[in-house]
Amino acid sequence: MQAFQKLNSANSNGKFIGVGLDTDPQKLPRNLSSFKNPVVEFNRRIIEATKESAAAYKLNLAFYESEGITGLKNLQETLSYIPQEILTIADGKRGDIGNTSSLYAKSIYEHFKFDSATLNPFMGQDSLEPFLSYSNKLNFILALTSNPGSADFQKQQLRNGNYLYQYVIEKIIGWNKNLNCGIVFGATNINELKENLTIIKDLPLLIPGVGAQGGSLEDVSRVLSSGKKASFLINVSRGIIQKSTGEDFAEAAKNELDNLNQVISKNLFLRS
Amino acid sequence: MQAFQKLNSANSNGKFIGVGLDTDPQKLPRNLSSFKNPVVEFNRRIIEATKESAAAYKLNLAFYESEGITGLKNLQETLSYIPQEILTIADGKRGDIGNTSSLYAKSIYEHFKFDSATLNPFMGQDSLEPFLSYSNKLNFILALTSNPGSADFQKQQLRNGNYLYQYVIEKIIGWNKNLNCGIVFGATNINELKENLTIIKDLPLLIPGVGAQGGSLEDVSRVLSSGKKASFLINVSRGIIQKSTGEDFAEAAKNELDNLNQVISKNLFLRS
Repeated sequence: MQAFQKLNSANSNGKFIGVGLDTDPQKLPRNLSSFKNPVVEFNRRIIEATKESAAAYKLNLAFYESEGITGLKNLQETLSYIPQEILTIADGKRGDIGNTSSLYAKSIYEHFKFDSATLNPFMGQDSLEPFLSYSNKLNFILALTSNPGSADFQKQQLRNGNYLYQYVIEKIIGWNKNLNCGIVFGATNINELKENLTIIKDLPLLIPGVGAQGGSLEDVSRVLSSGKKASFLINVSRGIIQKSTGEDFAEAAKNELDNLNQVISKNLFLRS
Repeated sequence: MQAFQKLNSANSNGKFIGVGLDTDPQKLPRNLSSFKNPVVEFNRRIIEATKESAAAYKLNLAFYESEGITGLKNLQETLSYIPQEILTIADGKRGDIGNTSSLYAKSIYEHFKFDSATLNPFMGQDSLEPFLSYSNKLNFILALTSNPGSADFQKQQLRNGNYLYQYVIEKIIGWNKNLNCGIVFGATNINELKENLTIIKDLPLLIPGVGAQGGSLEDVSRVLSSGKKASFLINVSRGIIQKSTGEDFAEAAKNELDNLNQVISKNLFLRS
């Protein structure tokens, strides 16, 4: 199944939350310490508990790369537990000259076989092209991020009156020949999300920043209810996988995911 | 020795070229195919041949990551052959929210023990802060890159009349509390380099784009002669390590590196 279809199918079934498997080896429940590989066991149980309700699994590559060779093995094994029909996202925010970007794309899309990746647009079109050439994948390109530093450059106003992030979105629409682009738009920028739904059009949205970073799920849902008709994904990492730090972590993750999906469905229902 | 000192020391000794170990496993000389690990053997011989004249070794992380677990082992072993006094640069153009950026910084600066890294500024100050907190390292932040796509966003004019890349430089100067920042400025943008030497001030420069990408070493040297007094590094990857594709690759790399250093020295001499 194509990446885009996986996301659409999830949304059609009332699933809007991506589970961020940003698994910190220092923060694992104690009862896993006897396992040969606690990170993989943790991820396996989270996936097992949440797979009926998750719209996607997003793995931030830094959490795996920072553990070196062990981390890459953990990444690969974790991916093997995710059901084929659920979207997988490599969150690495890559971007480099074409020659190099091809290697990143090959690693993410061919070696690890992710469905989707996050990309940094700062170096422009040719830096993204190798990813965009995979027509059955989904490329979420950073537009307006959820962190405070999004104000430094992304919110700078250009000479033509647009903000940089708006110009990024405009460019992405032009680059979307294979209908395999989406954008990253932080939940913490709720007013900007509301104001830009018309320029975002039907680009799929990946929305981080709910929970630990301060974004409100209710606010995001209400805004999306008001105008957004395309597919979207709200990512929650720590808010789900660290909901309980005890032995019941997987059950707690499942319950929290169900709660979050209900909050969204309740608000989205208003848009019909 | 601190990263900054390594670079200064190299420059004082007439060394201005960083050797890019962007080693492509598909493009190795045939005589290495019998080795257990051809990539490492290739890098080891290049380092052995060039270490007297190299100002730095830059390893583009994509070339190693794309080979998975083997690649990471190759990265680590390659680093072990680089003499302590020579600057090592992890070229990964990283940038993510603070929580994640800390992990990248830990991986690059603590696990692999690189002296320096390239960073992408698009997500703003808090995304770079974890790297900037390593006061003995050197953080080369992208300002104006060497690829065609640098025109897409970096050369957009802001409302205040500056171009985005100029504003990035201005911000970096403000963030340089630990005197551990430098900038990446592509050799293909020679006019912009000339026009911006005064705003770059004494920020160390990492200059890619000479050779395969079309930038001219003579032009860069002349421009730097005209005004730049701070330390700098011109990176050449394919132009050195693929100078010969035969058995004499290491000797050819050494000769090319010496040629390039001479071209620079000849032109820089004019500035005194």
